[in-house]
Amino acid sequence: MFEQVKALVFDVFGTVVDWREGVAREAGPFLARIGRNDIDAHGFADAWRARYQPAMEEIRSGRRGFTRLDLLHRENLEQVLRAHDIDPAGVGEAALDELNRAWHRLDPWPEAVAGLTRLKRRFIIAPLSNGNIALMTNMAKRAGIPWDAILGAEVAQAYKPDPQAYLRTAEVLGIRPAELCLVAAHNGDLKAARAAGLATAFVPRRTEHGPGQSSDLEPSEAWDVVARDFQDLAHRLGV
Amino acid sequence: MFEQVKALVFDVFGTVVDWREGVAREAGPFLARIGRNDIDAHGFADAWRARYQPAMEEIRSGRRGFTRLDLLHRENLEQVLRAHDIDPAGVGEAALDELNRAWHRLDPWPEAVAGLTRLKRRFIIAPLSNGNIALMTNMAKRAGIPWDAILGAEVAQAYKPDPQAYLRTAEVLGIRPAELCLVAAHNGDLKAARAAGLATAFVPRRTEHGPGQSSDLEPSEAWDVVARDFQDLAHRLGV
Repeated sequence: MFEQVKALVFDVFGTVVDWREGVAREAGPFLARIGRNDIDAHGFADAWRARYQPAMEEIRSGRRGFTRLDLLHRENLEQVLRAHDIDPAGVGEAALDELNRAWHRLDPWPEAVAGLTRLKRRFIIAPLSNGNIALMTNMAKRAGIPWDAILGAEVAQAYKPDPQAYLRTAEVLGIRPAELCLVAAHNGDLKAARAAGLATAFVPRRTEHGPGQSSDLEPSEAWDVVARDFQDLAHRLGV
Repeated sequence: MFEQVKALVFDVFGTVVDWREGVAREAGPFLARIGRNDIDAHGFADAWRARYQPAMEEIRSGRRGFTRLDLLHRENLEQVLRAHDIDPAGVGEAALDELNRAWHRLDPWPEAVAGLTRLKRRFIIAPLSNGNIALMTNMAKRAGIPWDAILGAEVAQAYKPDPQAYLRTAEVLGIRPAELCLVAAHNGDLKAARAAGLATAFVPRRTEHGPGQSSDLEPSEAWDVVARDFQDLAHRLGV
């Protein structure tokens, strides 16, 4: 199977980086500054993330043209603030933009950068994220993630799990879908990648949604590779 | 000027890599194999490159939709072969594709990777090339060019010197044109970048076109920075 794979592309939010802790780390001080430390920072992160799929569904369905995730995040932030009786206009543009960029400053899971550095020796490695190019570039720069290219929704002009997000990524790399492998902590993402003809690797991230996580703890299908983490993935791929 | 610059984007063919020597290095053995070592390999490289601007002009003018450079290179290769009375069909698909990928295997100028590695400490660095994403990614992987992202014509869906190639690159990075600097060995590229509002850095490459080069030996305008090479550029930018 993996003899023909030339490139590994990675889901990022949840698979490479811990978005929940990263957003909560910045939401906490923000909420304190506006006098609302009654709001739990992790709950705030969860509420913000809960609006992620519905916002992209507007675009996947064709009801809205392609829009970068930075803007969707910003719209979703304003909605979450209003849901907590906070007026975004009162917060001010600079503070809203600063908090919105928390998504550019997420930390990788502890072994992720070392594992990616190993995998890069043999494979082209790139994000296949719904995050936009600026977001992924700034995140990688800060965290030292050694991507070979920044791919994903903005390059494909399609949001996962739309088949075009996977197919156009292979096309852009000049390879066949079977020469491309998606690495993800989410069974749904892998299911869509497999349907598009990609190879699949599952790496569970059991605390992405916090200590009480109930989803994506185990592979839901016989993915081509199942690994404990990125170091184990490098080992299993013989790197 | 450079206090506000956040990202450096680079012309690649000529500025980062020596396309003429790289193409000639592969064209020589190819021509020998097909029994045509009467054709000079450097002349063959020059003839192939001479069809580069006219092919892109079809797209810039709107007469043809956006087409990746890999395909334009391939079409141009077949034309150059025919101009030398060689039938591309007789050469065969595998050999044509292999030679076409010589553009993926160009070597950087001697100090380029070390200079880019220094510049990367302070700036986001990315290609702003007319080369497509697969070409730039494969080239960087082989040569060890440490780009933070792969940008350029395919991301912008416009070929330089179309203003959109520069403006959309800034937009994709989430920065203003004045926060972006083009580094190039070509005065014409810098002129178009400046007209779009970018900062400009000139690094001459006096043998890009061989020992008798007559163009782009000197800056044609007062560019924001003029440097001898990428190491000197890093020095002048205080990195």
